[in-house]
Amino acid sequence: MSDSISNQSNWIDEYHNGVRYGLDCKILVDEQSVHQRITIIESSRYGKGLLLDGCWMTTEKQEKTYHECLVHPALCSAVKINKILIIGGGDGGTARECLLYKDVKQVDMIEIDEKVVELSKKYLPSIGDNAWKDPRLNVIIENGIHWVFKCNDDSYDVIIIDGSDPKGPAKGLFNKKFFEECKRVLKPKGILASQSESPESFSEVHIDMIKLMRQIFDFADPLYGWVPIYPSGWWSWLFASDKTAYYLTPNKVRAEKICNTCEIWSTKWQEGAFKTMPAFIERRLSL
Amino acid sequence: MSDSISNQSNWIDEYHNGVRYGLDCKILVDEQSVHQRITIIESSRYGKGLLLDGCWMTTEKQEKTYHECLVHPALCSAVKINKILIIGGGDGGTARECLLYKDVKQVDMIEIDEKVVELSKKYLPSIGDNAWKDPRLNVIIENGIHWVFKCNDDSYDVIIIDGSDPKGPAKGLFNKKFFEECKRVLKPKGILASQSESPESFSEVHIDMIKLMRQIFDFADPLYGWVPIYPSGWWSWLFASDKTAYYLTPNKVRAEKICNTCEIWSTKWQEGAFKTMPAFIERRLSL
Repeated sequence: MSDSISNQSNWIDEYHNGVRYGLDCKILVDEQSVHQRITIIESSRYGKGLLLDGCWMTTEKQEKTYHECLVHPALCSAVKINKILIIGGGDGGTARECLLYKDVKQVDMIEIDEKVVELSKKYLPSIGDNAWKDPRLNVIIENGIHWVFKCNDDSYDVIIIDGSDPKGPAKGLFNKKFFEECKRVLKPKGILASQSESPESFSEVHIDMIKLMRQIFDFADPLYGWVPIYPSGWWSWLFASDKTAYYLTPNKVRAEKICNTCEIWSTKWQEGAFKTMPAFIERRLSL
Repeated sequence: MSDSISNQSNWIDEYHNGVRYGLDCKILVDEQSVHQRITIIESSRYGKGLLLDGCWMTTEKQEKTYHECLVHPALCSAVKINKILIIGGGDGGTARECLLYKDVKQVDMIEIDEKVVELSKKYLPSIGDNAWKDPRLNVIIENGIHWVFKCNDDSYDVIIIDGSDPKGPAKGLFNKKFFEECKRVLKPKGILASQSESPESFSEVHIDMIKLMRQIFDFADPLYGWVPIYPSGWWSWLFASDKTAYYLTPNKVRAEKICNTCEIWSTKWQEGAFKTMPAFIERRLSL
């Protein structure tokens, strides 16, 4: 990175299929790790932020719209939440939301790229916040897919897949064999949670993920929300479980403790968000 | 407009508070009307589109995410839908969705800028579609605020405010006196519907509109959806009525006829969308 770039104001845009979304920002770090290009910026609108391979991942002032929607429908509803597995999530936001729950005893966070963890701790400390020093968090630098394949059966109460789009290091996070292994590793009555892309900008991946998850689990449903920095701003998260759709029924005691920390999530919000599947996706799934 | 601009591919961006959203497109028309700057573009992603004063208004392939959410919660639920008033809506999309209902006998569309109607008919004919030749539609080129002030009491079953952001020609559409006049002009059991901005990018206007509408009507509630071309992509529409929140209960017979035409809207979607108020807005409204 040249100083001439870092010291002036710039538009940094993510380009996707004839659309671009940009923030007015300065580049603080722009480097290639073993796995991907990592860019840290400081924006006038949303504070500091992270891009991987030129795609917006998170910003300080717009990260709860993503992390709350991924974590709370699972953590607030699962029968037990002693032991949590996070695949990815190197910025620390998912771990932070999990560790808000007193019942959580252990969070294993398997992040492939240690540079993402290192730079997030340094430049985006508010996102991981207290999670980084919480003794319940184990950060393990490893390929999350390998981790799941070698795990014992029935290891985790909740598994959260917090990966980027299905290309580059996150590619293997969106296929049948991997989801089947997640199911094996999940305890009975456990919940699997994953970001599931945009129904607008990545509609095929989104539909495929729902169909796949419904083949593997008895129940799988997406909910819909907003992450303005992601393509189209229209985002989704997918939850799956066996026997009962556990993720549909938040535990009231847990919800009451969590809701005051939330910008987006509430039990009412969640109930609504599970119903806002657009008609065009509903139609495609019924084919 | 110079030919050198019109014949090459360009990024046209809307800038808003440190964020920009752009489409890869050619400019087809760029002219100043009496009221505003009107730009018609052709984009690679969403077909042809319209900007007013540099703000994205609509595109051929992304207009139903807006028009369905504005029209159907009102038209599908109102006790009677004989006579409809649309303030604004010059692209014709709102009229088209209203005229899908056989029970609708008359739609008065009051658009301030005849250039918007003329250019929409010419360049975006699929948006107004059959509405333009439907004998039930009266297009009246006039200031919508003046129209409402001079209307008789109890004139319309449903009033739909389809204006742009509260600046320029749409400025007067967001104030107490105007909403009070709308209520006077609305029949008993009527429904008022309005776009109500982004809870993220225009949170103050959004909150003020809900508070104001709740002062004037017995019931007023927003629902939340997505318009990717608008700032943040996170959008809202507000519905109000007296005595009962009529807009919460779609008529089943009407819904069944409409739902097959919809990309987004369904009775289930609507039920969910009325519940997805984010916690930060819920908190602000309870102060």
